[in-house]
Amino acid sequence: MAGSSFGNIFKITTWGESHGKGIGVVVDGCPAGLSLSEEDIQVYLNRRKPGQSKFSTPRKEDDAVEILSGVFEGKTTGTPISLVVFNQNQKSKDYSEIASYYRPGHADYTFDMKYGFRDYRGGGRSSGRETIGRVAAGAIAAKILSSLGISIVTYSRSIGSVELHASAEELLKEDALTLSAKILENPLYMPEQDTASHAEAYLEQCIKEQNSAGGIIECLITGMSAGIGDTVFEKLDANLAKAIFSIGAVKGFEIGSGFSAAAATGLSNNDMFCLDETGAIDKKSNHAGGILGGMSDGSPIVFRAAIKPTPSIASTQQTVNKQGEAIDINIHGRHDPIIVPRAVVVVEAMAAITLVDALFANMSARMDSLERFYRK
Amino acid sequence: MAGSSFGNIFKITTWGESHGKGIGVVVDGCPAGLSLSEEDIQVYLNRRKPGQSKFSTPRKEDDAVEILSGVFEGKTTGTPISLVVFNQNQKSKDYSEIASYYRPGHADYTFDMKYGFRDYRGGGRSSGRETIGRVAAGAIAAKILSSLGISIVTYSRSIGSVELHASAEELLKEDALTLSAKILENPLYMPEQDTASHAEAYLEQCIKEQNSAGGIIECLITGMSAGIGDTVFEKLDANLAKAIFSIGAVKGFEIGSGFSAAAATGLSNNDMFCLDETGAIDKKSNHAGGILGGMSDGSPIVFRAAIKPTPSIASTQQTVNKQGEAIDINIHGRHDPIIVPRAVVVVEAMAAITLVDALFANMSARMDSLERFYRK
Amino acid sequence: MAGSSFGNIFKITTWGESHGKGIGVVVDGCPAGLSLSEEDIQVYLNRRKPGQSKFSTPRKEDDAVEILSGVFEGKTTGTPISLVVFNQNQKSKDYSEIASYYRPGHADYTFDMKYGFRDYRGGGRSSGRETIGRVAAGAIAAKILSSLGISIVTYSRSIGSVELHASAEELLKEDALTLSAKILENPLYMPEQDTASHAEAYLEQCIKEQNSAGGIIECLITGMSAGIGDTVFEKLDANLAKAIFSIGAVKGFEIGSGFSAAAATGLSNNDMFCLDETGAIDKKSNHAGGILGGMSDGSPIVFRAAIKPTPSIASTQQTVNKQGEAIDINIHGRHDPIIVPRAVVVVEAMAAITLVDALFANMSARMDSLERFYRK
Amino acid sequence: MAGSSFGNIFKITTWGESHGKGIGVVVDGCPAGLSLSEEDIQVYLNRRKPGQSKFSTPRKEDDAVEILSGVFEGKTTGTPISLVVFNQNQKSKDYSEIASYYRPGHADYTFDMKYGFRDYRGGGRSSGRETIGRVAAGAIAAKILSSLGISIVTYSRSIGSVELHASAEELLKEDALTLSAKILENPLYMPEQDTASHAEAYLEQCIKEQNSAGGIIECLITGMSAGIGDTVFEKLDANLAKAIFSIGAVKGFEIGSGFSAAAATGLSNNDMFCLDETGAIDKKSNHAGGILGGMSDGSPIVFRAAIKPTPSIASTQQTVNKQGEAIDINIHGRHDPIIVPRAVVVVEAMAAITLVDALFANMSARMDSLERFYRK
Repeated sequence: MAGSSFGNIFKITTWGESHGKGIGVVVDGCPAGLSLSEEDIQVYLNRRKPGQSKFSTPRKEDDAVEILSGVFEGKTTGTPISLVVFNQNQKSKDYSEIASYYRPGHADYTFDMKYGFRDYRGGGRSSGRETIGRVAAGAIAAKILSSLGISIVTYSRSIGSVELHASAEELLKEDALTLSAKILENPLYMPEQDTASHAEAYLEQCIKEQNSAGGIIECLITGMSAGIGDTVFEKLDANLAKAIFSIGAVKGFEIGSGFSAAAATGLSNNDMFCLDETGAIDKKSNHAGGILGGMSDGSPIVFRAAIKPTPSIASTQQTVNKQGEAIDINIHGRHDPIIVPRAVVVVEAMAAITLVDALFANMSARMDSLERFYRK
Repeated sequence: MAGSSFGNIFKITTWGESHGKGIGVVVDGCPAGLSLSEEDIQVYLNRRKPGQSKFSTPRKEDDAVEILSGVFEGKTTGTPISLVVFNQNQKSKDYSEIASYYRPGHADYTFDMKYGFRDYRGGGRSSGRETIGRVAAGAIAAKILSSLGISIVTYSRSIGSVELHASAEELLKEDALTLSAKILENPLYMPEQDTASHAEAYLEQCIKEQNSAGGIIECLITGMSAGIGDTVFEKLDANLAKAIFSIGAVKGFEIGSGFSAAAATGLSNNDMFCLDETGAIDKKSNHAGGILGGMSDGSPIVFRAAIKPTPSIASTQQTVNKQGEAIDINIHGRHDPIIVPRAVVVVEAMAAITLVDALFANMSARMDSLERFYRK
Repeated sequence: MAGSSFGNIFKITTWGESHGKGIGVVVDGCPAGLSLSEEDIQVYLNRRKPGQSKFSTPRKEDDAVEILSGVFEGKTTGTPISLVVFNQNQKSKDYSEIASYYRPGHADYTFDMKYGFRDYRGGGRSSGRETIGRVAAGAIAAKILSSLGISIVTYSRSIGSVELHASAEELLKEDALTLSAKILENPLYMPEQDTASHAEAYLEQCIKEQNSAGGIIECLITGMSAGIGDTVFEKLDANLAKAIFSIGAVKGFEIGSGFSAAAATGLSNNDMFCLDETGAIDKKSNHAGGILGGMSDGSPIVFRAAIKPTPSIASTQQTVNKQGEAIDINIHGRHDPIIVPRAVVVVEAMAAITLVDALFANMSARMDSLERFYRK
Repeated sequence: MAGSSFGNIFKITTWGESHGKGIGVVVDGCPAGLSLSEEDIQVYLNRRKPGQSKFSTPRKEDDAVEILSGVFEGKTTGTPISLVVFNQNQKSKDYSEIASYYRPGHADYTFDMKYGFRDYRGGGRSSGRETIGRVAAGAIAAKILSSLGISIVTYSRSIGSVELHASAEELLKEDALTLSAKILENPLYMPEQDTASHAEAYLEQCIKEQNSAGGIIECLITGMSAGIGDTVFEKLDANLAKAIFSIGAVKGFEIGSGFSAAAATGLSNNDMFCLDETGAIDKKSNHAGGILGGMSDGSPIVFRAAIKPTPSIASTQQTVNKQGEAIDINIHGRHDPIIVPRAVVVVEAMAAITLVDALFANMSARMDSLERFYRK
């Protein structure tokens, strides 16, 4: 079944395999009149580009985006925006080995079970390169959000067991721009330089041991007005959960207090309503993570995603080949010892797409605003 | 926007408010020829019925389901199945107090922000009674799964900080029927009676302190063949994440090793492929939780949901009223000190619906099976 | 597959069989704050009620609608509106004869081919009673349109070969209210009383000959501003075509000049743009029927639907029974000699639902209106 | 709102403007294992290519398709198939004139009303070139149908008022291959050479008079088994109606007897069931056009689409410019005097896509076939 589209009103459809001709996305439902250039999108793509530090694969991928449609004289026209990154190095190396067995932690086996065969070159459709389409589309969504005063800041909360000292609440004391700048200061996209240093040491050890690491990504969204999202199946947190879980390697998602809420009590976990200095309604705490009953509550939205360690490791592993024989393998090639830093922008992109779709869906929620919209 | 439907090919649409005339669901896309009676559905609804122990609200709700359409001579006809539970006690008590302020941890405030006003009687559409439609539909989905040899077992993994000793892997050593029977032996739906006793003691303390508790629900799915689910946005785990997160009070979702995978290494987290005693491909471990690259891998699917403590507590809380004044409140009435046990069947229902939809979507995945289907 | 929902943002889901417990619809995505009573819906349902003249079945069906959810204190709440009409006379007569063979022109045979069996009582899901849900939902859609200044007038253009003298353009010279009143003056819903008399004479002849008649329904929509609808697959006319063709017995749909455009030339068929007396852009003619490139152009939308003659006739017909034997049958019972008049309000309802969905979808078409909406 | 996708399980998403970098389509939900080459698609595209006779624009458009993803070693992989036709002559001529006014019969005005501005080069997104994506996707759908024994033959039934002598029923006496070959023998795609000659004479007159012509396209589908399509909103004829009406210039759609059914009687219009020589159930006539109650009935599916005359004509026309002034215009450039022949393959493509989606949706209609599918 068709499974490469996401969103209802702001909808993206991605395509492409790791070693095919290219990777792309069609963004449908983008409003007309948004200024948009390839550079707007490229800055996002550059955040997921490999080879920027010793902690990502040394493969060279330029990943230059082209806008093929939907933009005229520098502005979106309201018609579908087709974006493509052509793969530069399609000349496939010898994949006969990888084609012959099932790599642990990868989709090789499930692909064969579902479809009978697979494009085994570099992971095919299940490659991390699939996220290029998401990030390109997310850049557009983020630009729409920005024009509405909504900011998203995303970073690595932990690498292995090395975790930030500051809580999300503490990090939120800085404005989005300052925090974003701080995150870009180290290759692990952590907003604390000393924690990043410890994490780097941990990763170097992983590399030395031909092993890999995982981590947790945290996302902070500010500027969302209250009441966005639906109350039943299209809850804003439910759609964020799906959006983030649709990223390969994500194994957990939580919002606000998340799993720790399970051990809390109502008295400690409830966020009491209060009035802020301007007299506006606010919450004394934000265990809810900015969403109540599926709708944004005006507080910052705070969520986390758990990312598993890169499954491609150089250490010897046991597996089974297509002939049904148990074998030992060593996966060669240039692999990321950790994908968390590169996944940061993917999480941000999927969050942005989800928020834009929810904002659009909300426009017909009330008769009074509908009448105002159509009766000027 | 329309937000009360879930699923694409097997689609449910729920309706109803806590104190309206009734709660219902339309199940569209159910195959023709499934034996179905009201009793099949009632046994599921009875698992979420309140008043069955001191740990759920003493409100009496019979919640008797009626099938209004889609079943003829004891079998589903392929047309929409309309199910309804009429509310028996609509005679509203005085809700003027609750209508006047925003309860912490509830959707009162966000409802008002989105729609301008709300049906404040008993939580309206955001009431736990909304899940009646999900459970009724889930009973049908579970019956379809059962006919395909797929079982779902769901239980409380933890209540507050009282957690089961046995891991999911250990529990999976028992067959689904035995495990299910064990779970029904205590009102907390825990498969370990001694742990349940500790949890009961903890809950009694909560009740005494006018407080409430949360917990973690775990779900085990066995019998799924490999290759179900899609590789990009419609990943089986992504859809499970949305399904479960669309249940009110869920704050976290994880699959397999979940959040603990973030601190693991590739070597420890990868599940090596092996051959079982029959020579079939198997995995030596199941950190993946039964899904690889968005598709089922043939191992049991294992996921967990974190449930927050019931927000309605008798203790004094601070909040704001509709006039914008800070006030102290005490929420009266009969509330569940914990919703985890009653939510167990809701989680199971949403999982069943998600799996059926994925199984249906998978039928057109391959030309060879398509040709076999249409060319007999 | 789920096939009982229509619309994306304003979505309806219908359920129910002719002789089941009831017929209903869930309307999801209706904005909050619309005044809505059962009486608002009943006046629409009464227009399709049988037994109001000798030209419709003398069956007595009261078809009293109940609102089960989504309305609080007289206003829609933004949550799903569940509407039901309980069937009053479920006591089935003996259907063994009708169950045994395939009625010509009915869905008996195709139902059996698709599902293996069918609810044969009164046509089951394929009965005209299925349209009750559409009309009830359409009443809500029409109320939304009315609040935006949009009117729909629908009537019988022809009964058999008896056709109105006045063209749509001529009828549009009268205001919507006057025209609507005129239509209600005869049981055939024709805006010309003399033509209606001729049509009645024709129908009486049909009845005498144990035969039935078809006709053409025309629909006029005024007050739509320009630019509603999409340019590719979600063209406003494409969605109207689907909406109308989803009504049983519809065999043709055309907009503006319709089929006669096929024999016209560009010079005669093009609508030249001009300025009206206020200096606003207008068209000198309306061969386009109010839609250009899939989007409303500000002129009245004019479309027609061809309705086949009622397939249930008393005359002897040849058919095949379930044993695969050729037999002669006489269909007994009280059948409409024509369904065109009763289908008028069904066409209007489906048009209203389509327009509301298009209006909602259009709200996020432009960045400037988006910013105005969210940045006050 | 997103409006460039069509289909649910077999879903296509088109993008591109007439004078942008290219035109493309993403085909998602194509089963794995279908042999597919660029040549398979190119033969379809060639049927809509201009410049093949004096009756289509002399513009040279090579329209060479490239497969960018979803095919590996000559077979579809089950992942999205991205197809693109790069525009070869983007060097825009001077469009300042066409940008300044609203062409009658075109979407210029409605585009401006909806989006505030438009890509005016060659019609932008509303250009006939948009159909390239549909035809490319349709080639894949047709190949799937072919593997299931389903054929589609499409041709011009009339050009202006010059109409075929043979009825659809008579044409159906020839096998699909012979009929298809005959259609390709003249540039108007008519299966009668003498009628084609008359139509050519009519078109030459149109060209001489700087005018344009319309016509009717007819489509015959054979080999569909009974029971495909749904009974309510997703009726097979309703989806065909939307599919065909979403093609620019279509003003009418009818199935089987179509509009003429409106003037028929039940006795003449009902198709009596009978037994064919093999004892299988058949119909004595096919006024229904192969669909009863929204589901295929096993007879050939027969439908027609009315196509309006090309709106771009060289004759002087009145219109209004963006400054709101009434002006006279002469549209220059190379335009098709008729688009009917080039639209034939577009109609066929949209029909094929609709049928494939309906076939896929039908696979979960019955428990017995579901159990057979999953329990081998």
